[in-house]
Order: sequence, then C-alpha cells, then structure tokens
Amino acid sequence: MKLIIAIVNNDDSNAVQTALTEGGYFITKMATSGGFLRKGNTTFLIGTNDEKVDGALEIIKANAKKRVEKEPTVPPTEMGEFFTPIMVDVLVGGATVFVLNVDRFEKM
Amino acid sequence: MKLIIAIVNNDDSNAVQTALTEGGYFITKMATSGGFLRKGNTTFLIGTNDEKVDGALEIIKANAKKRVEKEPTVPPTEMGEFFTPIMVDVLVGGATVFVLNVDRFEKM
Amino acid sequence: MKLIIAIVNNDDSNAVQTALTEGGYFITKMATSGGFLRKGNTTFLIGTNDEKVDGALEIIKANAKKRVEKEPTVPPTEMGEFFTPIMVDVLVGGATVFVLNVDRFEKM
Ligand code: NI
Ligand code: NI
Ligand code: NI
Repeated sequence: MKLIIAIVNNDDSNAVQTALTEGGYFITKMATSGGFLRKGNTTFLIGTNDEKVDGALEIIKANAKKRVEKEPTVPPTEMGEFFTPIMVDVLVGGATVFVLNVDRFEKM
Repeated sequence: MKLIIAIVNNDDSNAVQTALTEGGYFITKMATSGGFLRKGNTTFLIGTNDEKVDGALEIIKANAKKRVEKEPTVPPTEMGEFFTPIMVDVLVGGATVFVLNVDRFEKM
Repeated sequence: MKLIIAIVNNDDSNAVQTALTEGGYFITKMATSGGFLRKGNTTFLIGTNDEKVDGALEIIKANAKKRVEKEPTVPPTEMGEFFTPIMVDVLVGGATVFVLNVDRFEKM
C-alpha cells in the first residue's frame, strides 16, 4: 500500500483530479502554496495498492507535466490601434510527486 | 513513532478532534476535499508512539465510521398542507486512515 | 530522499519559508489548525535528499523554536489615564517535525 503525495499547478488540478477519479483512484485534495513566488498550487493525497502506483504517476504526468504552450500576448499598442495578439511559447505545468510506504491502511 | 493520516467527513470532524485531544493525541487539522462529488472533508495528521496507534484508530472509528442514521425528509406536499417528516435511513460517516512510519521526530 | 512535515506557528511561518527557500529547499505550505485552542498554524512539506535533512531542521529550529519573548501588555487603566505598557515574558513559537522516508520521488 502506498500514499502518493502529488503537488501540481492549480491550472492542471481539475484535469488531474478527473483523470485519477475515472482511473478508480481514491484522492484527497488540499489547497496549498509554494515555490519562489509562493504561488497557489494543489496537493493531492492518493492512497493506492503498490501495483497501481505507476498508473497514477502516468495519469499525473499526462495531465500535469511541465510543457510548452502557445499563449496569446497583448503587444504594447497606442490607444485605439487595432492589435493582433502574438502567440508566444510559455512554460506551464510541472508536478512533484512523493511516494511513501503505508504501514497500515484502514477504511471504516 | 507513526504518523496517522485520517480523512473523515466534515460532520464528524469535531467529534473526532475532541475525542483525540482528550485522548492525549497531538493533532493537526486540514480542510480538504475529495471523492466523486468533490465534497469538503477533513484530514487529520496525528503523530503518536507505535503503541498508541490502535487507541487513535479506535477513537476515529467510534466517532467517524460509516453508519446508518435516521434523518427526517420532507415529503412533497401541496401548499399549506401540514406535513409530517418521514424518517429515512441515510448512510453517513466513513473514515480512511493511513499509518506511516516516522523515521525521525523532533519537537523544538 | 525524505519528506519533512513541519508544523509551526503562523507567526513564524514567513521566516521559516523564506529561510528554507533561500537554503535551496523545495517547500509546500498548507494552512492548518491544531492544539487545544484549535489555533491556526502552518504545515510545511519539504522534500529533500537524506543528507540535507539536518540543514532543514536547523533552519526550522532557528526560525520557529519555542522561545521567550518580551511583549508589551496593556495594564488595566481608568479612562483617559496615560498608561505605559509593561513588558512581560511570553512563550512563543514551537515546531513539531516529522521526517518520513520517501520510497520514490518524481519530478515531471
Ligand atoms: Ni504496502
Ligand atoms: Ni518509530
Ligand atoms: Ni531516500
């Protein structure tokens, strides 16, 4: 039995939660913050059998890994001038995952 | 030394917290959410000596286990008609508990 | 690889977070509550290599240990009477730290 503690960006937390629940995982979500900018993020507690740990990590990776996304930026423009947003590469996502051994598990 | 992580329903969290504190346990409470309906619940961190783990689990079970309770429901009624609530069985409570081994414990 | 779970007073949490971040530690912060008075406190999750655990504990101790501080109290006074606050010794701070072994660590 393992306890997975996964810290993901808030933007990814819904996708991760939905995918894990559909994957049959029992998850508990906590609002947390961290990192240099003390940005809000999300920490999941996922209790699962040893052989299902890899599956959970794959789901987390698929939905929360660090990746480059195109995002529109608003270029500086004079008043009233029509502007077309330029798409720029932005680094998003990223997950940190700890897997801990569970001595004893009880459901009551 | 063990760290007990117990996830209980919000309705049971006060009873669990009071009983554990009276039982001499040091507890930390976190507001969390989980399950299919992403309902709010409560996660307790309980650090305790190995031989006191069973005692804590019993307290949690006594105060938070899954159980059937009678709850009044409001039957559909026409306007102004006097209604008598009917008592129905409702499944409440339920706790999920992980017991982890603590490598090192410090109080400063 | 270890996961340090440190519970500190809210008054100390900023100092601890800043010092740990400057020390190069990756930390996640959770708002929690605990103790007899169910006072709000702060729980940090700190993932770190085995040989950096002592360093983290020293930082936590330096910034959050139980200590006596002089705090001004407002003596009872009649209306309009000029009062000079008296400095009294107050017990502040205090940290509880659990160090758990991490089976597996992934950053994605
Ligand atoms: Ni196991
Ligand atoms: Ni022990
Ligand atoms: Ni290790």
